[in-house]
Amino acid sequence: MYRTHTCGELRVTDVSKTVTLAGWVQTIRKFGAITFIDLRDRYGITQLLFGEDLQSQLDANPPGREFVLQAVGIVQERSNKNSNITTGEIEITVKSFTILNKSAIPPFTITDETDGGDDLRMKYRYLDLRRNAVKKNLELRYAVSRSTRNYLHEQGFMDIETPFLIKSTPEGARDFVVPSRMNPGQFYALPQSPQTFKQLLMVSGYDRYYQIVKCFRDEDLRADRQPEFTQIDCEMAFVQQEDILNMFEGLVKRIFKDVKGIDYNDMVERMTWEDAMWHYGNDKPDIRFGMHICNLKKPGSVYVNKEDKAALINGADFKVFDDAETVLCIAVPGCSEYTRKQTDEITEWVKRPQIGMKGLVFIKCNADGTFKSSVDKFYSEEKLKAIAEAANAQAGDLILVLAGAEERTRKAMSELRLEMGKRLGLRKDNEFRLLWVLDFPLFEYDEEGNRWVARHHPFTSPKPSDIEVMINNNPVITDAAKYLEHPYAGIKANAYDMVLNGNEIGGGSIRIYQRALQEKMFTALGMSKEEALHKFGFLLGAFEYGAPPHGGLAFGFDRLCAILGGSESIRDFIAFPKNNSGRDVMLDAPSSIDDKQFDELQIKLDLKA
Amino acid sequence: MYRTHTCGELRVTDVSKTVTLAGWVQTIRKFGAITFIDLRDRYGITQLLFGEDLQSQLDANPPGREFVLQAVGIVQERSNKNSNITTGEIEITVKSFTILNKSAIPPFTITDETDGGDDLRMKYRYLDLRRNAVKKNLELRYAVSRSTRNYLHEQGFMDIETPFLIKSTPEGARDFVVPSRMNPGQFYALPQSPQTFKQLLMVSGYDRYYQIVKCFRDEDLRADRQPEFTQIDCEMAFVQQEDILNMFEGLVKRIFKDVKGIDYNDMVERMTWEDAMWHYGNDKPDIRFGMHICNLKKPGSVYVNKEDKAALINGADFKVFDDAETVLCIAVPGCSEYTRKQTDEITEWVKRPQIGMKGLVFIKCNADGTFKSSVDKFYSEEKLKAIAEAANAQAGDLILVLAGAEERTRKAMSELRLEMGKRLGLRKDNEFRLLWVLDFPLFEYDEEGNRWVARHHPFTSPKPSDIEVMINNNPVITDAAKYLEHPYAGIKANAYDMVLNGNEIGGGSIRIYQRALQEKMFTALGMSKEEALHKFGFLLGAFEYGAPPHGGLAFGFDRLCAILGGSESIRDFIAFPKNNSGRDVMLDAPSSIDDKQFDELQIKLDLKA
Repeated sequence: MYRTHTCGELRVTDVSKTVTLAGWVQTIRKFGAITFIDLRDRYGITQLLFGEDLQSQLDANPPGREFVLQAVGIVQERSNKNSNITTGEIEITVKSFTILNKSAIPPFTITDETDGGDDLRMKYRYLDLRRNAVKKNLELRYAVSRSTRNYLHEQGFMDIETPFLIKSTPEGARDFVVPSRMNPGQFYALPQSPQTFKQLLMVSGYDRYYQIVKCFRDEDLRADRQPEFTQIDCEMAFVQQEDILNMFEGLVKRIFKDVKGIDYNDMVERMTWEDAMWHYGNDKPDIRFGMHICNLKKPGSVYVNKEDKAALINGADFKVFDDAETVLCIAVPGCSEYTRKQTDEITEWVKRPQIGMKGLVFIKCNADGTFKSSVDKFYSEEKLKAIAEAANAQAGDLILVLAGAEERTRKAMSELRLEMGKRLGLRKDNEFRLLWVLDFPLFEYDEEGNRWVARHHPFTSPKPSDIEVMINNNPVITDAAKYLEHPYAGIKANAYDMVLNGNEIGGGSIRIYQRALQEKMFTALGMSKEEALHKFGFLLGAFEYGAPPHGGLAFGFDRLCAILGGSESIRDFIAFPKNNSGRDVMLDAPSSIDDKQFDELQIKLDLKA
Repeated sequence: MYRTHTCGELRVTDVSKTVTLAGWVQTIRKFGAITFIDLRDRYGITQLLFGEDLQSQLDANPPGREFVLQAVGIVQERSNKNSNITTGEIEITVKSFTILNKSAIPPFTITDETDGGDDLRMKYRYLDLRRNAVKKNLELRYAVSRSTRNYLHEQGFMDIETPFLIKSTPEGARDFVVPSRMNPGQFYALPQSPQTFKQLLMVSGYDRYYQIVKCFRDEDLRADRQPEFTQIDCEMAFVQQEDILNMFEGLVKRIFKDVKGIDYNDMVERMTWEDAMWHYGNDKPDIRFGMHICNLKKPGSVYVNKEDKAALINGADFKVFDDAETVLCIAVPGCSEYTRKQTDEITEWVKRPQIGMKGLVFIKCNADGTFKSSVDKFYSEEKLKAIAEAANAQAGDLILVLAGAEERTRKAMSELRLEMGKRLGLRKDNEFRLLWVLDFPLFEYDEEGNRWVARHHPFTSPKPSDIEVMINNNPVITDAAKYLEHPYAGIKANAYDMVLNGNEIGGGSIRIYQRALQEKMFTALGMSKEEALHKFGFLLGAFEYGAPPHGGLAFGFDRLCAILGGSESIRDFIAFPKNNSGRDVMLDAPSSIDDKQFDELQIKLDLKA
């Protein structure tokens, strides 16, 4: 060992011990004939004091920032204590020292607030990883992983490794593929998830499986997507949805406790997908604040079971509302006194291309009980009052109304709600609110192909009550205009998403375990019998030999860590992330391969001009 | 939940409870009006008793082998107890049951001694995994992983994930490569190990890193090699070799304790590579038994520091020994009375092509103190006695002598020693003997290129005393015939292998952490400056910014599990292994990909005729 102690552990109780420390030079301060060096390692920072006797040696071999230094010395109590660091009550009076390695001047400062830009930090990721801010993220990640493993172990789950070189079955996302040298002309695929393997493990009787596992998707990288990412992947046999929900809200509560010291004793709320869309405009609502959407008007064809309040706005000759498919509003608390400038600014905000609305109507619910709106010409104060009541607005609130096409308007209102929540400080970093979203539609309509696609994935079971609907109806959509009337449009999935503060952190489903139903699903998705057998013959085969009822879910590990760490970016929680072009700029990968490799793999490039 | 209890947990203390079980039908036995079904799950087997009242229901829907059954009933004490299973004192008197899923007749029996051949079992791996024998292996694997994580956590190690899509730097083994769609013409490689990443993490200050991680090598698969395999990968900073040895023999001892209940309190033996080769003929000796090799004769150019006993055999005009480069013998205890048939059989054994010797000389050390050999014509009894003394043979032993070219003969003697150890029952399954092999040569001579190759890998440091030798000498070999006299031939590596019962279970080294030495290493391996920068520029760069002294090792996780499980084959300890052609016969992977995939990746096939 090059050290007897770390740079984070010495205390006043160690005074007068002779110790050896090793670490990196954080700062050097010279005061006349003495020199102070702050020595840093993973565990902390300790101050080294070099007396007069060592100055000539220091001058001959001057250590610089990020040099690796080993120092032998005696622990002394400091006169000038530093309460910011855990070793702040002591310092080491150095007796001798060795420079273990030198350092060039780093391209950016190794400090919490570094002067390095993103590109520079990624290129020198090994230096960026020295910064305390990044180190804390990786420590949190390890703590989440440790907590997860302990909980799942105690619950009888087994960690079972599934293969990485598997078969390409492109559904939805693109596979990364790997040419096989031993089987020329053939390719492995990297798994997008261990989905079918974990189902096979259920068929094999391993009734509680988990894995913290890398997955791969060759998608165009939007901000904060990585081509390789990590999942907490779980599956259970002999369970119903309720068992899964209980088990995994237990897991997340345990992580809160172990990692953040938070006792999350509240019931985890549950909400149907339809309610989430209706009240929040999206399927992963942030329930840290209310500000529910009031549906003034909606097209008759969607949310058929929900009543709108169109009567409140109809008959006023206000063309914008009359022509709109959907009119939605929210009551923003305490903002009735917004100035013209402020309301104009919000109007501009909803007109940004990312939101894409044409304008914004507002109604001020004044503190004195009167109302003032941007549509006073069309709506009497009485009518405004009725709208305000419908929106559950209080005196002092500001009602914001959006009108337009259903999907865009609902999405815009969802964004506007989040934005107003943020502006009002209602989305608190240190508040965590979990939510299960349930009862998703099993299918989504694909306009291009005039057919059904799986909303979750092709292995998700319909709700028990919908199995007969699925089996007994032909999935073909004869009249595209009336796809919403097709029996398949109403089939609900036995699926669930876990949402934390407006982010989907995990999701899963009860699976199909009957061969006939699975075959019907493949047919519904437009797969021929041959194609289904070619791609998923092993799974269909497995279902013939006693497949138990089963279900599971997967958490996005990177994102879970980011949210727990209070960050928007998963990249900060990955040791060696890739940039938005899928490049590792530190390694300079991907890169060309040599002719011998092409030759052995029996492939060649076919580059487009 | 489809069950209140598992099939492994009910005991006499549960008698009269109403329970629900779910599992697979293992056996069905009908006795007149009652039927017994053994119901199996991951946890055990419980006997179900179906009385007369349920027979018509059973007849209407007869369950078969591997059907998934749910049964509600009452726990009763059995009159006819079965002490072979943990639930053998009770049975369930079934009140009602449901067939949750049917099963076709499995292609082989789901029993410890199955009638299924290897190919069939691999094709239906999901059924093979149901067998208790396989389940026990995966449970052992999980126990080893759990024990490893707990120990390393307690020792302050952090699990840090390293990337899977990295840069191709073909050294030694072939990389699997992954075409990048977003960077046409460029490829990622899958990691052969996280070697350079863990070193970067040391540079970043994460002084104790570990990962249980998949690695990939595109090699021609010898028996018991897998293209993807798992490593326990570890690295530490500010350590010397001694620290690593202590830390990781601690890990293996902990695994013995946790997984096998074995207190391994003995010191772990240590042996130099030269001694291992000299006394055992290989670098991973099985030290469960002695039977050391006696070097009667060896070429002067190898093992230069070792003395042979050539004087004992020289001058007898026995051409076989006189012409041989190397003459080695072992004393096989208690076998002096082997018959002619037995010695002939051993002679045939060494003449097999896998061993490749021309013949075998034997000397019987008779119980009465006399000697009898197959070379009595050349060697007097006195001379035989002197040889026997050199070989440390006792009265009653049988000395086996092999002669021939150095490498082949040493290898053959190593194999013969292991074979005789096996025949004599000296290699006990339930005995575990650990060994560190140390002081490997840093370089191996590559005859074809007349150059040096790294024995371990290019990041291994020479012994501190050999650093100057490496820096100050030109690696070029001017006279191929005299390569053994080149200063590089004698450089020892700061490397270590852990050997368990004759298997290398792990290995590692203290690493180079100085840029100049690392560059010299790349030069020694015949890499140009440009090539070194292209491939490992990031590492050389990292060494400029304060790289600490560091080292580590990796355990072959699959093999470690196999040995602990008393098996020769790692495949039995992998949930979904590939066959010797790298195929997953269950998935039928690798397989063809479709035109759209080729098109998007901008590659095409270039198949040789």
